[in-house]
Amino acid sequence: MNLAQQLNDTKEHINQYLSRLLQERVAIAPRLNEAMHYALVLGGKRVRPFLTLHVGALCGADQHSLERAAAAVECIHAYSLVHDDLPAMDNDSLRRGHPTCHIAFDDATAILAGDALQTLAFELLSSPDKKLNPNRQLEMIHVLADGSGDRGMCGGQALDLAATGNAVPESELAQVHIHKTGALIRAAVQLGVLAGHDDAQSYRAHFDAFAHYLGLAFQVRDDILDVIGNTESLGKTQGSDIQANKTTYVSILGLEGAQQRLHDLHHKALHALGKIPYNTQLLEAFADHLLNRDH
Amino acid sequence: MNLAQQLNDTKEHINQYLSRLLQERVAIAPRLNEAMHYALVLGGKRVRPFLTLHVGALCGADQHSLERAAAAVECIHAYSLVHDDLPAMDNDSLRRGHPTCHIAFDDATAILAGDALQTLAFELLSSPDKKLNPNRQLEMIHVLADGSGDRGMCGGQALDLAATGNAVPESELAQVHIHKTGALIRAAVQLGVLAGHDDAQSYRAHFDAFAHYLGLAFQVRDDILDVIGNTESLGKTQGSDIQANKTTYVSILGLEGAQQRLHDLHHKALHALGKIPYNTQLLEAFADHLLNRDH
Repeated sequence: MNLAQQLNDTKEHINQYLSRLLQERVAIAPRLNEAMHYALVLGGKRVRPFLTLHVGALCGADQHSLERAAAAVECIHAYSLVHDDLPAMDNDSLRRGHPTCHIAFDDATAILAGDALQTLAFELLSSPDKKLNPNRQLEMIHVLADGSGDRGMCGGQALDLAATGNAVPESELAQVHIHKTGALIRAAVQLGVLAGHDDAQSYRAHFDAFAHYLGLAFQVRDDILDVIGNTESLGKTQGSDIQANKTTYVSILGLEGAQQRLHDLHHKALHALGKIPYNTQLLEAFADHLLNRDH
Repeated sequence: MNLAQQLNDTKEHINQYLSRLLQERVAIAPRLNEAMHYALVLGGKRVRPFLTLHVGALCGADQHSLERAAAAVECIHAYSLVHDDLPAMDNDSLRRGHPTCHIAFDDATAILAGDALQTLAFELLSSPDKKLNPNRQLEMIHVLADGSGDRGMCGGQALDLAATGNAVPESELAQVHIHKTGALIRAAVQLGVLAGHDDAQSYRAHFDAFAHYLGLAFQVRDDILDVIGNTESLGKTQGSDIQANKTTYVSILGLEGAQQRLHDLHHKALHALGKIPYNTQLLEAFADHLLNRDH
């Protein structure tokens, strides 16, 4: 199966899983669950679930455990987008070509839907799972919390807010992205490894290095696309970073410099993968695809 | 030791624990952690930590495990207050006699601080703990997620939003409070039981019934205080429910009817406690205190 098919299958698979999850849930407040569903299944690249599922498969993890972990990561990602889009934050009305959650519903519902999606992630990861060692399961929860809280994604988002409107050097910009985007991508990969068999644990550091460089490179590509992409294929307003007066890799390094940086990070990600004695072809192809994407 | 002393000691104890927790944390984004700290240590009655700590002590739980669980519940409670106070939600500028988090900081920081406080709760509960059976620890995480997500606290908050401005019958009002306030109070009690020894697990249902009635009665007392209290002792604007056109137990049952309902629920809470063969005197005194409080 080629990558395009794999990407599509994984996306379909995770979309169905998330959709069923919300549909089968007995809702106390139906509108809240509609907003959660809307935020979750609106689409998107499903980068994080892809990583959890395929890293986990390489590490010999149980498929059901992986699906749950992948869904949990995507709940965290979806909640962060809902909150980031709020008027008090980035004030975006368009996401993936659709009205953002607070536009489709209202601000209060969007805040609560984000909150409840975060909780759902931890509910999923703490559900009884006979295929997982309970200590490993606890570690998975801890990894997700660490990657998404004040020392991970939320911390990065706060750094981003503080940096907006200020010229920051590349080292500070990297700190923003290492936390804002990178931490959750790393968590997604770690969840896959942790759900795997004992032998796989010895490659945890290599998988983590892969995730680290991939996450940073992903963001550099994002910055490049903000300049060279167009609104239609991006599903958001092109040039929105420039309008928001944000420092980006392109504003610091220039377009060519950013492309060079992307190339270096991509290389480092593949180098880390090369140290893992499994068939990492699909992950390599995924990295290539992600870092050459046009939206 | 009498109840007043116990209350004060527990409050001091949990305040110190929470304060130290945030101070010792390496902050990625200092302003975010300041806002988290502000929201956490602003004070309050510490009802939920009190319950976790003292129910857990009755059940023979390890003190350190309990402190961590109590702190986790308070993180959830604090995050919910920060988000509830936002302009898009209740738009409150005063909480416990102090500016609310978004007033002291800004809306974006308050959203993120709330988000990160929720994550911190799950980080705490998933931290390595040799005194806990890992399956029990997973159950604690699941109980907290269940009590605080769309089928618990968040669901109740969404129901509350939907009910505001509409006259609702008592059964619907109870649904709001059973979820909005009750679910987290129940989770606080369950965490104490789950951290306890195996024998204590057989009384879980009785502890849960106690928590259920206590939580509901707590809210009835809140509604009564909104009418008979004053702004100074409440630390919030008295009559704010009436201004917000909210259905309350007083608006449905009248003041006397609400007081009767409070009495009934209080009685049921004590009855459930009576079925537990431990020395529940302190919990009884706590319920009496809570349900007769004037702020």
